[in-house]
Amino acid sequence: MKITANDPNRKSWLKVPENSDFPIQNIPFGVFITKDDIITIGTRIGDYAIDLGALHQLGYFEGIPLTDDIFLQDTLNDFIADGRKTWRLVRNRIADIFDVTNQGLRDNAEHKDQVIFRMEDVEMQLPVAVGDYTDFYASKEHATNVGSLFRDPENALFPNWLQIPIGYHGRSSSIVPSGTPIRRPIGQSRPNEGETTPNFGPSKLLDFELEMAFITTVANDLGERIPIEEAEDYIFGLVLFNDWSARDIQAWEYVPLGPFLGKSFASTISPWIVTLDALEPFRVANPKQVYEPLPYLRKEGNDSYDINLQMAIKPENEDETVVCNSNFKYMYWTMAQQLAHHTVNGCPVNAGDMMGSGTISGPTKDSFGSMLELTWRGQNPIKMKDGSERKFINDHDTVIMRGYSQNDNVRIGFGECSGKVLPALK
Amino acid sequence: MKITANDPNRKSWLKVPENSDFPIQNIPFGVFITKDDIITIGTRIGDYAIDLGALHQLGYFEGIPLTDDIFLQDTLNDFIADGRKTWRLVRNRIADIFDVTNQGLRDNAEHKDQVIFRMEDVEMQLPVAVGDYTDFYASKEHATNVGSLFRDPENALFPNWLQIPIGYHGRSSSIVPSGTPIRRPIGQSRPNEGETTPNFGPSKLLDFELEMAFITTVANDLGERIPIEEAEDYIFGLVLFNDWSARDIQAWEYVPLGPFLGKSFASTISPWIVTLDALEPFRVANPKQVYEPLPYLRKEGNDSYDINLQMAIKPENEDETVVCNSNFKYMYWTMAQQLAHHTVNGCPVNAGDMMGSGTISGPTKDSFGSMLELTWRGQNPIKMKDGSERKFINDHDTVIMRGYSQNDNVRIGFGECSGKVLPALK
Repeated sequence: MKITANDPNRKSWLKVPENSDFPIQNIPFGVFITKDDIITIGTRIGDYAIDLGALHQLGYFEGIPLTDDIFLQDTLNDFIADGRKTWRLVRNRIADIFDVTNQGLRDNAEHKDQVIFRMEDVEMQLPVAVGDYTDFYASKEHATNVGSLFRDPENALFPNWLQIPIGYHGRSSSIVPSGTPIRRPIGQSRPNEGETTPNFGPSKLLDFELEMAFITTVANDLGERIPIEEAEDYIFGLVLFNDWSARDIQAWEYVPLGPFLGKSFASTISPWIVTLDALEPFRVANPKQVYEPLPYLRKEGNDSYDINLQMAIKPENEDETVVCNSNFKYMYWTMAQQLAHHTVNGCPVNAGDMMGSGTISGPTKDSFGSMLELTWRGQNPIKMKDGSERKFINDHDTVIMRGYSQNDNVRIGFGECSGKVLPALK
Repeated sequence: MKITANDPNRKSWLKVPENSDFPIQNIPFGVFITKDDIITIGTRIGDYAIDLGALHQLGYFEGIPLTDDIFLQDTLNDFIADGRKTWRLVRNRIADIFDVTNQGLRDNAEHKDQVIFRMEDVEMQLPVAVGDYTDFYASKEHATNVGSLFRDPENALFPNWLQIPIGYHGRSSSIVPSGTPIRRPIGQSRPNEGETTPNFGPSKLLDFELEMAFITTVANDLGERIPIEEAEDYIFGLVLFNDWSARDIQAWEYVPLGPFLGKSFASTISPWIVTLDALEPFRVANPKQVYEPLPYLRKEGNDSYDINLQMAIKPENEDETVVCNSNFKYMYWTMAQQLAHHTVNGCPVNAGDMMGSGTISGPTKDSFGSMLELTWRGQNPIKMKDGSERKFINDHDTVIMRGYSQNDNVRIGFGECSGKVLPALK
């Protein structure tokens, strides 16, 4: 089925500001609460939030096989479970409804009142109930940097890293939507030299991790696996993802079972899921891999995506400073490889599962995706516009991530993924 | 509120076989499907499954604040979210209904027909939709054994182990109820000496891990924590837990982020959740800890539980052989310590979350909780009753875990947690 929603020449009768992340070619999916306290599934064009529940009730999705209440829900899980064909039909239809040539909704003031809200009048929610969340570790530069910092620069990359899209299970319950304040976590950290009692208190090394995450649909039953050629069929879309990390807690706890409380205090995602379909024009060639992967991970093609990513820190009442510019295409392992690997052992993947990329660091020092790397564990503090310096994240700082793809015709963006750090509880 | 359900002198008008795991003092909670294909929440007395949905509709829970459909659900999550007070009221009431002195239901043939089924006529389901699943690593003997086998016998225990209830996030989607066949997983394992390409294929070192797991209720919001004194209030009950492990996959993948596909192909739990209330008579003194724990982990008392645990292997068409006898009291860290630790960073715990103990190995060689330890990585194979030997688990073997607490008055058991291993898919 053709993705007619992606037509770069299409224009909407809704006003879209120049350089908006949300032209009519985007049509992301999210969940919001209206001023009247109604929760619904919606999309966004320009600075308007569009209530898909209302649109469906008014008959605008006629002919598409959808249950009556598919959009009258507080998560996208059921819609995602409907599968790729349905997502495409719905996205194509939304593009038609809002196309400048279509007068149906445009000229129906009563319907427009029920369907269209200004973004400032709605409150974005978590778009999915995340069942299981996995975080990969798929940037070679990041893995090398962290290996150098935490272990040994001579053997920064473990031998398994070049053969396996290394990943680990993360905590779903602390995934929150952009805008949720983040409480500085308390925990144990390494004892002082010569002592056995660990240090305890608020983390002194609070960090961000610049990541993206993809959201899956129902993929396989227990014991079955997804062939790599089919893997992308099970990916609904992507969000920006800040995998907050407390480096001191993490460093003390992570051997031998991996990161735990150094991560599970909070993970922030952007509220609009941009579909893989919308990102189709931004496919780029797969990364060159050092070793030929095992057959179940082998696939030629353009499975990487060119998505510009940026992280900024905004001290309270001051201007923000961009501290990092990276790109999703720097991932060494593709999403298709990650999903094929995740299921090779028969592990079931469900609708609403989330898979993080791991920190995406680029080849240059200003493209590293965490303060740990950017300041090289605090050795090279970053100068803020207000004159202050940052080794890690301070209380009352807001950390803001942005991402977009752009070519000569269209810009498809994600909006913001932000969180303000609150002081630790007493 | 008194736990009158635990009265050791109480007898039921339902026949309970001698040495049953399910006397009227147990009253566990589970989910089953009846012959008529109706799914409901229930309990068990002797060899009878009792439909709590039907009991509630017939008015037997009058006076207890319960929503009408609380038991007409396919998971216990909502009931668990009702909290400890409600669980106690319901358990006490069930004990009254089936008490030998109570003629109400006993003498109502029509009601009994709707409420009571024989166990062989129902099909047990997963009792909860597990939101997040965490696995701890709380047996000192196990951690020491594994450290010796995988790393260095001289430094088997990492310094953090004696300070932190070490744990990691696990995969919820592959948790299955007892009886579900387990497909031998496929995956990468370490390359041969001098080669870079990993081996690939069915796991050659498929193992069980003898564990228990506790199920929580809603405990805290993001950013808050549970004081250790209150931790047990948030524990609904326990199940037997076989954390299937593919040792060859695990050994190659687990550095530095922890076990992943070596675990996530399947995890089996017993279908009846035995409440912490029912286990009250089996509290025993906390383990002696090498170092005094940090204040947030410090609590005197009897927070350990004396639960006998056993693992058996049954080759196809042959008698089973018990390969291990252990006990839940061998845990170095208590459940209260685990839960206090898990939330110290502000990580939210929800109703239906599951926390595994980690493999429970005792001090003697026949109490080790995995084949890895029992056979010392295959060096000392175990002789089966049928004459065959096992280093790890073979195809077509059924692995059966059992557990019970017993004193002079009463035996409270968990039934079985079993799974049969199927050959890997081609």
